[in-house]
Amino acid sequence: MIIDRLYKLVNERGPICIGLDTNFDYLPGYIKDKNNLSIDEKIFLFNKNIIDNTFDLAACYKVQIAFYEAYGVRGLIAYQKTLSYIKEKEGIVIADIKRGDISSTAEQYAKGHFSGDFEADFLTINPYMGFDAIKPYFKYLDTGEKGLFILAKTSNPSSKDFQKLELDGKPLFMHITQKIEEWGEKYRGNSGYSNIGSVVGLTFPDEFLMIKKHAKHTFFLIPGYGKQGGSGQDLAKIFDKNINAVINSSRGIIAAHRGIDETKNFVKITRQKVLAMKKDILQWL
Amino acid sequence: MIIDRLYKLVNERGPICIGLDTNFDYLPGYIKDKNNLSIDEKIFLFNKNIIDNTFDLAACYKVQIAFYEAYGVRGLIAYQKTLSYIKEKEGIVIADIKRGDISSTAEQYAKGHFSGDFEADFLTINPYMGFDAIKPYFKYLDTGEKGLFILAKTSNPSSKDFQKLELDGKPLFMHITQKIEEWGEKYRGNSGYSNIGSVVGLTFPDEFLMIKKHAKHTFFLIPGYGKQGGSGQDLAKIFDKNINAVINSSRGIIAAHRGIDETKNFVKITRQKVLAMKKDILQWL
Repeated sequence: MIIDRLYKLVNERGPICIGLDTNFDYLPGYIKDKNNLSIDEKIFLFNKNIIDNTFDLAACYKVQIAFYEAYGVRGLIAYQKTLSYIKEKEGIVIADIKRGDISSTAEQYAKGHFSGDFEADFLTINPYMGFDAIKPYFKYLDTGEKGLFILAKTSNPSSKDFQKLELDGKPLFMHITQKIEEWGEKYRGNSGYSNIGSVVGLTFPDEFLMIKKHAKHTFFLIPGYGKQGGSGQDLAKIFDKNINAVINSSRGIIAAHRGIDETKNFVKITRQKVLAMKKDILQWL
Repeated sequence: MIIDRLYKLVNERGPICIGLDTNFDYLPGYIKDKNNLSIDEKIFLFNKNIIDNTFDLAACYKVQIAFYEAYGVRGLIAYQKTLSYIKEKEGIVIADIKRGDISSTAEQYAKGHFSGDFEADFLTINPYMGFDAIKPYFKYLDTGEKGLFILAKTSNPSSKDFQKLELDGKPLFMHITQKIEEWGEKYRGNSGYSNIGSVVGLTFPDEFLMIKKHAKHTFFLIPGYGKQGGSGQDLAKIFDKNINAVINSSRGIIAAHRGIDETKNFVKITRQKVLAMKKDILQWL
């Protein structure tokens, strides 16, 4: 089961997920200036450098497709190359696509992101449209080799607008949390966790504790570390030694070299940042 | 304002939105068999035929990006060609992307779908993450030439799972409906309607009536007609003569020729279907 592979990597390397939210502005000068490369080749070269220099430290990579859609067809070629490079290295990749649509459309998203050019191991999914917008992905989950992370409580300040509204004394994100546990029952691996996980931001630790209490078999994808404000100390409020989660950092890692090192050596700073994140997290667990 | 242009077209041509949810299986045999064309050229040729033969009857087109993502990079080349062809003909295009993400990511989606290869006039957006996931699009709305349709109550059976939960005394879709009115206030055109509209399915007329009562300045994108079960008679329960909406039909129109006419003449059936839909709708208004 894919979740068991991820859980094993978390135990071996630490719960680090590196977010390849690659804005063209992040590219070091020496890549930007390569006149013989197209934009997709430049973006991919940057990502490849990051991947090659962090692979032994990361449990997985999360690729935020919005940053690639921003550059149109060329951007999506860079996205495709990045995903297939991680696959080639036998790494685990989470496609952060947050799709959500009616069943006939969800079938197409599932096909597009669990096979072909954009094939990933895990997809992030938006639950607003309900169960029939989730179900079409199950055909791929049935193989054991694919998984989902469904949005429960996101890391952004406005997540309170709707996710915190209450029904029967319970906020919307708890209704969704319970559904995720329920939907995931069929897809539990030997680790005890399910191939259907949940996205919960690190930025609201009290809410995370409430979710964790009711989601014993759910593995978490945690955004909100670093630039968004979450820290290792916040994680320690939520987890003990057994951490059933990956913590994502994007800008804090992949943009750390900006204005400091714009040469080939930029990845030294990238690597230092990943090591510092790992230390910040593991010291509390 | 883009919404005034759309409203004018609705009054001139009828409230018809044609959904280009192009599954490769829908292509007539004569296009599938063209060995000299790549997959993106085949998909685009099909769409171009539909557009050319329905342009005078449709207020706008809705292009569901999932069907193009399903074919990877080639699929997105077909998507890009379709959008720019509609633009070239000065038609209005709604990119049905249902994106929703934190602000730094939403900025990238806004850039990717309001400019460049994938530039559209309107985007559909998922509100689950709250206001800061919507706000980055406003920079483009400020020009008056771009608009949003935000999901309120979707057409699928499972829309009840979360959208109907009674949170703080009213269903979630009503909380969102009121926010859409509020966010849209700044973007109202001469028609009285806002460039920020709302997606409400035709499949639950009673809920639609409740929404309409509290959304006086909201223009609607209505899925759920035809294959999903909604009819002109359902529309008549909701609207009087002044229809501030476009009604989308996809499969019911673009797949109608399947198994009946697989030749160049397939568009005759497409056109008949659009005319029949128009009659079905307008007889009740």
